[in-house]
Amino acid sequence: MQSHALVALVTLLALLTYFWMGLNVGRARGKSGIAAPATTGDPTLERAFRAHYNTLEWLPLFLVSMWLFALYWNDRVAAAVGVVWIVGRILYATGYVADPAKRSTGFLIQLAATAVLLFGALGRIIYVMAVVGG
Amino acid sequence: MQSHALVALVTLLALLTYFWMGLNVGRARGKSGIAAPATTGDPTLERAFRAHYNTLEWLPLFLVSMWLFALYWNDRVAAAVGVVWIVGRILYATGYVADPAKRSTGFLIQLAATAVLLFGALGRIIYVMAVVGG
Amino acid sequence: MQSHALVALVTLLALLTYFWMGLNVGRARGKSGIAAPATTGDPTLERAFRAHYNTLEWLPLFLVSMWLFALYWNDRVAAAVGVVWIVGRILYATGYVADPAKRSTGFLIQLAATAVLLFGALGRIIYVMAVVGG
Repeated sequence: MQSHALVALVTLLALLTYFWMGLNVGRARGKSGIAAPATTGDPTLERAFRAHYNTLEWLPLFLVSMWLFALYWNDRVAAAVGVVWIVGRILYATGYVADPAKRSTGFLIQLAATAVLLFGALGRIIYVMAVVGG
Repeated sequence: MQSHALVALVTLLALLTYFWMGLNVGRARGKSGIAAPATTGDPTLERAFRAHYNTLEWLPLFLVSMWLFALYWNDRVAAAVGVVWIVGRILYATGYVADPAKRSTGFLIQLAATAVLLFGALGRIIYVMAVVGG
Repeated sequence: MQSHALVALVTLLALLTYFWMGLNVGRARGKSGIAAPATTGDPTLERAFRAHYNTLEWLPLFLVSMWLFALYWNDRVAAAVGVVWIVGRILYATGYVADPAKRSTGFLIQLAATAVLLFGALGRIIYVMAVVGG
């Protein structure tokens, strides 16, 4: 596994970025005075919550695609595209909390990064199965 | 890893099915005219949203169980049961958006597929630990 | 992979714990009489739902960190800390449904377990990259 240390490192950095969004939700909850289990009733809390959950939605798409890309194709390319995903997600979350209309740029960056990883891995796996045999 | 190309392929097809449900949410949001961060207020949006999130809930159960089944037991069986899961999920999502009462058939299919993978992997891992040693 | 059977076993036990929380949501929904797709309107349903979803939020942080810890460092330590996570999550979910104020102890236990796994894996991977080379 040691040859995949770069992708493992990017994985943990992505998880820390996601954890930071969870902290933002806790902070927004504290400021709003809205007690759990409610997640609505304050604009900043709702935006921080949805930014966090949208990232949760995309984590399986991103992490699984990045690892399959790395395992079946190229470790360094997977890690580099993974860094682009993290940058997109940070722009997305900070944009969303400021104004829901400002979440688009970061969203499109992470979407493009995920698409490269998912369709890159898909194409390579089909190629491997056709040439080498499943 | 190339011997697991079949399970990797089914994994990416499952993620594409899940991504398609996310597109349905976006489309329902557009039609409803309800702006983010709200996720309620329109029946079709709420159904599409819950179908997507229920699938997100089950992704770790399904994907992790399928991979452990493949790694510790049988690659082809894991991939075949994974295809059943995808079919169940498509039926579930289309049924749910039409009428929440129509989500049961697809739900039970994906539940059965997940149970086979999870308990199959669990039984095999306990067997491996007992016979070969952890 | 057979050398990681212990971590695989803890992974499946964690998924079964998470599945049990999903059953609690179904039971609370039945008692409340609130039909899908709604997830609010009854305190017990809302608490069971949020306990389940908070665990979903943390599953990628926990599972990925435990596996990277096991793959790059120590299998038995990863599995032992994983058991602590499961205990914390059971205390969290039972506490939350009884009273949202009682969710803290279990939450802090699972937070500590996740932090050990995540930062342990992160430190080890950086060490591996520095000494062995990525």
